[in-house]
Amino acid sequence: MAYNAIVVPNYNNMAKNLTKREQDYSKWYNELVVKADLAENSAVRGCMVIKPYGYAIWEKMQAELDKMFKATGHQNAYFPLFVPKSLFEAEEKNAEGFAKECAVVTHYRLQNDPENPGKLRVDPKAKLEEELVVRPTSEAVIWNTYKGWIQSYRDLPILINQWANVVRWEMRTRLFLRTAEFLWQEGHTAHATKQEALDEAKQMNQVYADFVQNFMAIPVIQGTKTESERFAGAEETYCIEALMQDGKALQAGTSHFLGQNFAKAFDVKFMTSEGTQDHVWATSWGVSTRLMGALIMTHSDDNGLVLPPNLAPYQVVIVPIYKSEEQLQAISTVAQNIMESLRVNNISVKYDNRTTQRPGAKFAQHELQGVPIRIAIGPKDLENKTVELARRDTLTKENVPMAGLAERIGQMLTTVQESLYNKAVEFREHHITPVDTFDEFKAVLASKGGFVSAHWDGTKETEQQIKDLTKATIRCIPLDFEVEEGHCVFSGAPSRGRVLFAKAY
Amino acid sequence: MAYNAIVVPNYNNMAKNLTKREQDYSKWYNELVVKADLAENSAVRGCMVIKPYGYAIWEKMQAELDKMFKATGHQNAYFPLFVPKSLFEAEEKNAEGFAKECAVVTHYRLQNDPENPGKLRVDPKAKLEEELVVRPTSEAVIWNTYKGWIQSYRDLPILINQWANVVRWEMRTRLFLRTAEFLWQEGHTAHATKQEALDEAKQMNQVYADFVQNFMAIPVIQGTKTESERFAGAEETYCIEALMQDGKALQAGTSHFLGQNFAKAFDVKFMTSEGTQDHVWATSWGVSTRLMGALIMTHSDDNGLVLPPNLAPYQVVIVPIYKSEEQLQAISTVAQNIMESLRVNNISVKYDNRTTQRPGAKFAQHELQGVPIRIAIGPKDLENKTVELARRDTLTKENVPMAGLAERIGQMLTTVQESLYNKAVEFREHHITPVDTFDEFKAVLASKGGFVSAHWDGTKETEQQIKDLTKATIRCIPLDFEVEEGHCVFSGAPSRGRVLFAKAY
Repeated sequence: MAYNAIVVPNYNNMAKNLTKREQDYSKWYNELVVKADLAENSAVRGCMVIKPYGYAIWEKMQAELDKMFKATGHQNAYFPLFVPKSLFEAEEKNAEGFAKECAVVTHYRLQNDPENPGKLRVDPKAKLEEELVVRPTSEAVIWNTYKGWIQSYRDLPILINQWANVVRWEMRTRLFLRTAEFLWQEGHTAHATKQEALDEAKQMNQVYADFVQNFMAIPVIQGTKTESERFAGAEETYCIEALMQDGKALQAGTSHFLGQNFAKAFDVKFMTSEGTQDHVWATSWGVSTRLMGALIMTHSDDNGLVLPPNLAPYQVVIVPIYKSEEQLQAISTVAQNIMESLRVNNISVKYDNRTTQRPGAKFAQHELQGVPIRIAIGPKDLENKTVELARRDTLTKENVPMAGLAERIGQMLTTVQESLYNKAVEFREHHITPVDTFDEFKAVLASKGGFVSAHWDGTKETEQQIKDLTKATIRCIPLDFEVEEGHCVFSGAPSRGRVLFAKAY
Repeated sequence: MAYNAIVVPNYNNMAKNLTKREQDYSKWYNELVVKADLAENSAVRGCMVIKPYGYAIWEKMQAELDKMFKATGHQNAYFPLFVPKSLFEAEEKNAEGFAKECAVVTHYRLQNDPENPGKLRVDPKAKLEEELVVRPTSEAVIWNTYKGWIQSYRDLPILINQWANVVRWEMRTRLFLRTAEFLWQEGHTAHATKQEALDEAKQMNQVYADFVQNFMAIPVIQGTKTESERFAGAEETYCIEALMQDGKALQAGTSHFLGQNFAKAFDVKFMTSEGTQDHVWATSWGVSTRLMGALIMTHSDDNGLVLPPNLAPYQVVIVPIYKSEEQLQAISTVAQNIMESLRVNNISVKYDNRTTQRPGAKFAQHELQGVPIRIAIGPKDLENKTVELARRDTLTKENVPMAGLAERIGQMLTTVQESLYNKAVEFREHHITPVDTFDEFKAVLASKGGFVSAHWDGTKETEQQIKDLTKATIRCIPLDFEVEEGHCVFSGAPSRGRVLFAKAY
């Protein structure tokens, strides 16, 4: 059986139909996700189908993150999807934070509906004694488990990660950015000392920053959340904040220092090396399929997706240009050689020799899907021993000799990866605006957007009022926070430094 | 931060406490799963926690299967966890097959319980208009999605796999073998012709057979299920059947030819290359964390887990034997060199230099956890330039020179992998017993167990009566079924060949 492995919609002229970013950024995003075959809405409210092309990108993220987690001493495990209500409510703040968006399993059986032949209904006799919450996050079920694993300091630290699906019943959903079900990883660690837990939380935030910057080519700002923006149940939330093309921020990952809150809620104590009893210190940290949204809104353009080479399901696509079957055969022979030379150099490549599509439609599809480099080979190229190379990010083309092609492409991929990152850094730097008055604050948000760097008096009340008036929230108190005496941009009260505000996804 | 990555319970004398298989096989299994740190029961009825050591084995299975799926042209994707009731009931046989074991989400919010301060209750106002079934399998939600993807023969085949969790509300559960939630992969393919779908279903059953035999060292018999044992909604179910040490069979994987049943239920038609309309042909296929149970019950012994080298989280463990800190340092230097030489040869190795455990406890732990090869190094070994090598499967030890160690261990791992497979084949061959009378049938089942090869008249009634009388079911009609005129072992009616009966997990 020779299968054509790729699901192929008709991409003819698709890019032409893509809404321009300037016109309607949000519409552009929604269309791009669907047209580039990344994901689509499902029959289940708020839940998405991640399509093969989108999932292949997610798999690349997973593989790299998993490697980084293991390199920092973590192991994977798996905990139950369901959280019994009594466990869920044990850590009060956490429960309160998630209670309003919980999918709840109440029954365990369906039966034939006597009133509607051929239909089913919930069997009223199969009601669960205790309701089960579909995990919105797993601290409760995991700390209830850790209780059985920890007696002594010798059992610590526990450094575990889980790849899983979670459900948060959001009212307004958007593909990848906010979905009722999403995929993520959640790390849950247990430590003997406060310092060790704090170090772990910081370390994992740094791992996220390294991953998002080096692998996804997205610059981020590391910081901590204000109390009101913290994870429910955390004592400190570290985060990485990215900036999207439309000037809105996106929280790309968080790492929480949970103190002893969960250990106390689940009564997890250990014998210290001094023989005393103490509650265990905890962290948790996660990134999700939301990163797909960050990827799209950092690099893509009006022609569609732009992928950093590290994340491309295939980094290079070869399109044959031919009229006769003979020409196709001659081109295919050359293409095979090129593919071999690329694969030897660890460059992933796909030969698009479909006969159901014309070259123009193929070009449009690969542009829309963000393949970093396209090679076109026609009969003239065979004569001249050249190929046409096209770069997706710059939309530039050049004719180059076949000799030394793999090396040239290897260098070009490195250039693309770096150049996407540099471009995003430049955009981001241009969109961090220090302001000293609330009028400026509002004006910057209304005109150029981005991060607004301003003094804040440190109170919840001010934070809330600014949010009510401008929709901007404090994205983070940057880790490189510098002490600078000043006055709160809103209240005028004394402040010891600037924090970053922005409208956010 | 230098973390000790492994969660370390106290394994001292644990193996000694393991129930013997002869005494109580079922108890031995349950104890082994927990003591070898593979999994444990959770606070959620019937749901398990897969612990890091168990999950590491599952990850090895996943990686290999994923490679095999991709090599046969499949791509991964992700579909929603929830199935709206109206979709779930669309394919009647499938719905009927799973309705009795469905976890059902009926509400999407919790609220403070006014009668119990600090507690939560389901918010009666947050009732879903339509109940959501937590997927027991994904045909319904996937075929409802495929409907939007398929218009023409050009859109076919679709070859997709999903790694996911599923929930089946089983009443009697056992770790790995039968749990309310389990992890699996489910392939779902769509084809233009019946023949292509049949070929796919057979191909994937062959992939499973190759994987289980070559990678897990478990011999299997390929066959088809009888109508009453088929997957609900399938027209043919291919399966691989393994034999456990206690003489019971275990269905290790299934691959279903679904005909046009789901295409008809979800109205998925396509334009053929001749311009006519036809319903799409389907397959689905899956293996699950149940394979962990098969692994344990094929190879393990009274001392604990025995792992084929392909599946071992680490294939070799090095234990230093020392009295002084000086000795430890000298041994560690040698151990580092050995580890490097093993890693260069793609052999995974762990240096167990914990100071919290004595060598005896370490030996017991690694034996219990099935590490294929143990190296012990003491001061005398340093003098003699030797190490002690111990094989887990045979429990044999030998002193060997350090020179050429990596090569020797590489060969030994190959030998262990082959020898486990051969031993299991021998056991299986000895436990396929042809019988020609029902008395013999019952006697074999009661004494040696295993597969009973017998003539069957092909009727559901006989199949059911045999099951009622003996608890044995028809495991499969072997693919290498040979025509042999005979008489049904139960009814005496004419039969054209033998099928395999067994009691099964």
